[in-house]
Amino acid sequence: MLSPVLRPGFIQLRVLDIDEAIVHYRDHMGLDFVSRDDGRVYFKAYDEFDRHSVVLREADNVGVDVMGFKMASQEAVEELRRNLDERGVAHETVEPEEQPGVGERLRVHMPTGHLFDFYATMALSDNGPMTDNPELWRDEPKGMRIIRFDHCALLGDEIEAAAEILIECLGFSVTERVVDPAGENIAIFLSCSNKAHDVAFLKAPVKGKLHHASFLLESWADIGHAADLMARRNIKIDIGPTRHGITRGQTIYFFDPSGNRNETFSGGYHFYPDNPTRVWTTDKFGKGLFYYEQEVVESFVGVYT
Amino acid sequence: MLSPVLRPGFIQLRVLDIDEAIVHYRDHMGLDFVSRDDGRVYFKAYDEFDRHSVVLREADNVGVDVMGFKMASQEAVEELRRNLDERGVAHETVEPEEQPGVGERLRVHMPTGHLFDFYATMALSDNGPMTDNPELWRDEPKGMRIIRFDHCALLGDEIEAAAEILIECLGFSVTERVVDPAGENIAIFLSCSNKAHDVAFLKAPVKGKLHHASFLLESWADIGHAADLMARRNIKIDIGPTRHGITRGQTIYFFDPSGNRNETFSGGYHFYPDNPTRVWTTDKFGKGLFYYEQEVVESFVGVYT
Amino acid sequence: MLSPVLRPGFIQLRVLDIDEAIVHYRDHMGLDFVSRDDGRVYFKAYDEFDRHSVVLREADNVGVDVMGFKMASQEAVEELRRNLDERGVAHETVEPEEQPGVGERLRVHMPTGHLFDFYATMALSDNGPMTDNPELWRDEPKGMRIIRFDHCALLGDEIEAAAEILIECLGFSVTERVVDPAGENIAIFLSCSNKAHDVAFLKAPVKGKLHHASFLLESWADIGHAADLMARRNIKIDIGPTRHGITRGQTIYFFDPSGNRNETFSGGYHFYPDNPTRVWTTDKFGKGLFYYEQEVVESFVGVYT
Amino acid sequence: MLSPVLRPGFIQLRVLDIDEAIVHYRDHMGLDFVSRDDGRVYFKAYDEFDRHSVVLREADNVGVDVMGFKMASQEAVEELRRNLDERGVAHETVEPEEQPGVGERLRVHMPTGHLFDFYATMALSDNGPMTDNPELWRDEPKGMRIIRFDHCALLGDEIEAAAEILIECLGFSVTERVVDPAGENIAIFLSCSNKAHDVAFLKAPVKGKLHHASFLLESWADIGHAADLMARRNIKIDIGPTRHGITRGQTIYFFDPSGNRNETFSGGYHFYPDNPTRVWTTDKFGKGLFYYEQEVVESFVGVYT
Repeated sequence: MLSPVLRPGFIQLRVLDIDEAIVHYRDHMGLDFVSRDDGRVYFKAYDEFDRHSVVLREADNVGVDVMGFKMASQEAVEELRRNLDERGVAHETVEPEEQPGVGERLRVHMPTGHLFDFYATMALSDNGPMTDNPELWRDEPKGMRIIRFDHCALLGDEIEAAAEILIECLGFSVTERVVDPAGENIAIFLSCSNKAHDVAFLKAPVKGKLHHASFLLESWADIGHAADLMARRNIKIDIGPTRHGITRGQTIYFFDPSGNRNETFSGGYHFYPDNPTRVWTTDKFGKGLFYYEQEVVESFVGVYT
Repeated sequence: MLSPVLRPGFIQLRVLDIDEAIVHYRDHMGLDFVSRDDGRVYFKAYDEFDRHSVVLREADNVGVDVMGFKMASQEAVEELRRNLDERGVAHETVEPEEQPGVGERLRVHMPTGHLFDFYATMALSDNGPMTDNPELWRDEPKGMRIIRFDHCALLGDEIEAAAEILIECLGFSVTERVVDPAGENIAIFLSCSNKAHDVAFLKAPVKGKLHHASFLLESWADIGHAADLMARRNIKIDIGPTRHGITRGQTIYFFDPSGNRNETFSGGYHFYPDNPTRVWTTDKFGKGLFYYEQEVVESFVGVYT
Repeated sequence: MLSPVLRPGFIQLRVLDIDEAIVHYRDHMGLDFVSRDDGRVYFKAYDEFDRHSVVLREADNVGVDVMGFKMASQEAVEELRRNLDERGVAHETVEPEEQPGVGERLRVHMPTGHLFDFYATMALSDNGPMTDNPELWRDEPKGMRIIRFDHCALLGDEIEAAAEILIECLGFSVTERVVDPAGENIAIFLSCSNKAHDVAFLKAPVKGKLHHASFLLESWADIGHAADLMARRNIKIDIGPTRHGITRGQTIYFFDPSGNRNETFSGGYHFYPDNPTRVWTTDKFGKGLFYYEQEVVESFVGVYT
Repeated sequence: MLSPVLRPGFIQLRVLDIDEAIVHYRDHMGLDFVSRDDGRVYFKAYDEFDRHSVVLREADNVGVDVMGFKMASQEAVEELRRNLDERGVAHETVEPEEQPGVGERLRVHMPTGHLFDFYATMALSDNGPMTDNPELWRDEPKGMRIIRFDHCALLGDEIEAAAEILIECLGFSVTERVVDPAGENIAIFLSCSNKAHDVAFLKAPVKGKLHHASFLLESWADIGHAADLMARRNIKIDIGPTRHGITRGQTIYFFDPSGNRNETFSGGYHFYPDNPTRVWTTDKFGKGLFYYEQEVVESFVGVYT
């Protein structure tokens, strides 16, 4: 089955102090500030066509409100609604313009406790990539030179059930998984595209938690630059620059001022739906997580929002 | 419409001297030699799962025999056959194992004079990427460190008609096009994936010609390395290292010993089917072709096989 | 003999329009604007300690006024003065503060018609690299991310005689030379440090001409970035990105708005005074100039200021 | 004073198993195997002119036998001998050919317990860089693509006294130092060239110990490649890829099979003798050591040979 999901379209995060967060996401990460509406702040990366891809909401606790997925058509959204009904998966409708410029969304209550919104329309940015005799970019990319919001890794308990919905209703592929000695999946990486992952689920006895929200950089050279910038500006690096065994991406993990984990990464392989699934066993999980360090870092596994 | 085409799967080229060609594609470019059968030599890149992606055939003239596309399913191949019949597009069946390890192919006679083969099955390589606790690579990539056969640019007359088949029967998107003052397309770039192009047509009063066969590298750093290696080994560079305006890819063009043009490239944007088409006008075609030089190089346009 | 010359310390260039030039050197190249005094504008690169390294003077013709060399001590300057007297080489004294912050200079009239200033003192910049618990940089490098003014290539007739002064009076080494079939040097590359060249002389029947003033970048990645920026801002690229055979540097040549040729380069080997001299013959001069193109580009040789 | 020392010329290390060590230094690091003589194995990097730069000796304990420095002339060696006599620093003569191809050496017993050999002659390699119409390299660099043996960091007690000899007798400059709250230097970085360090002393209540022997790579891209290769071949990485605050070098630390610490690094600033000394205080020592991690890693400080 071909996936009618185009891409992760947005992430809505809760932050403790919206002004501190703006400095982080706009000035340090270099995202374009789009608007401040209804208590939320909207951002996009320089190479994204859609109006926004990151939404921050000030709250008294942190974490992820919802992850949005852009679909190829409204028909695909409707077919998903029917499939969810057949399966008895809880869902609801989010009205158009609940986020500025975004059409009606089908909100799915995932078995892991996460909210996933599926939608077919978002207004185009008036500051997206050029299309008439297009230059490389309008203005030189700023901050960490982020190309796009790319994917999330999410923690929850029922990761098999969550993955099943994405696979069976939406044509996602499992690109990699990590299996414990009992044969149970403790991590599942899923793609709806040619990316090594569009979303990943990590098994934990929790509901609706965020491990990290990830942003694409162009190259290992830009990974180095981002690390320089983080250190210069005293942004706390969690781990990196390093490489994942899983997805082969080159990566840095760091935190926003509220403690939500961000990732900037580059590279990794290109996935096609006919590719075999890569499978990791727990004894090699360290190398799968961090190819250079070859060990599981406790803080990396244990800290989330 | 979602494209049921996964990717360009192989290119079969004619070369004048097969042994010279082997030195070029295996030792200089660094492709894995797969087999030598029935007068043809088969290669693959280190990061490809399928048995082969480059096929060379010794002949007394050069150019492209056929470009192959891997489809998501045999059903998709059959649906294509029906669509072609409706449209009256000539096609034929290529028997399984005409190339070792490849299933039945639907061969389409494109209006530009090219042969495009669509197929759903090819044997997996026993030397493809690892899948059990996979290392980054089995052995360090050799030669130009080519990741995969990526795309072709083809010259022909009826490029609108060729593009129409890919768009309407196969769900390809037009990512970029170059329009002359009369409003006619003189180049059309098409994608069936998240790539900026899987195939491109360049208008010329010829049939079935090859402009170049292109191979993916990881980064601008590897572009530099490939240029070093070409110069060291006296491989004729046509142009580069430079960057395209169209697709934004970083590139080097060079020739195999028979005169077929090869490209190694990296970078470029990631495409989604809901992205607007980029449009170039002929006065900016120079910048579209070569962003740094900003001019059309005659030899680049006029030489093909 | 150990060279008492530390480095090329400054270049003073003539430009036709000082305001256009400021946009080029400050905004595009990214040099720090230091001051505008006495009809001249002073710049430095972010990683230089001294007050300035580039001086622009508005005039009705273009080219180089003088190239300055920082020496290890005033004693070394005085010893040079004595040596020049013995040799009968014309020289004069430039008073302290002729350029702000620069001490007395010994100005040598080189046989090629160039003026070379040797001096032991220049005021430190208050915006140089940090020295107390130093960060990587104060502010992120801007524009082309230039590290320093690095070297010049100069055209003149008596290049042997000019080189002899640098070698015998100042301990420079010949790193590379290009020899014509008659055995005469047509290009001489000289180093007073661990650089592959601090100054180069190119033989031409002219006096006091500039081929290019060159600026160091960190890496091939920054070469690519500089090319992107030049193309985006429509700065005329002469040639590149490419690599020199001579010095092995990775390079882009381009022009300032007045037509003075600039170079940004990175890489190349590290030189030690006990290294053999590399020697090129004219039949390989193309590869020596441009390793990838392997040919002499006429405009590159014939255009200078 | 100009330093008559050209560069660190060789390091002689003790290893527990010479055959294992050969695999590490030749096959993994990619050094050229030069010869196996008198129980020692000799290596050089591809871009070094001299016969050898790394010497391994099998022994029942590990560490450094001697670090060698190439001087500009025999006169400079003799002047050093006189200076040492005046100062009462112990020294001796090592006969020519004690290492194949190396002339007489002046061996100095440094106050830190290290042996430093100063010599003016070593035979040129017949496999050094090309000098007649030179190509970029003879053969593509292998393994970690090491350019040269670059420097050592050494542990000892009397680091002030050791530095004083290098500064006063040999014209070394202090590029950086780390000062504890009592005002005492706990680390001193010294240069005899345009490098940020040719040797470093780290204060510890020991004699003659090696912290690491360091090897130059071309770029951050090659740092990433070296890390990939180490991980693929299960070479234990100590820390990295990361960047130093001190010297600004980009680095990976790892161990040879005997436990001697190696470093591969790239980048860092270029030093001139008139540059101010950078000074670190102990509260920022973490950032000085590892700019990204910003903390002192105990194993890094506590493990040496």
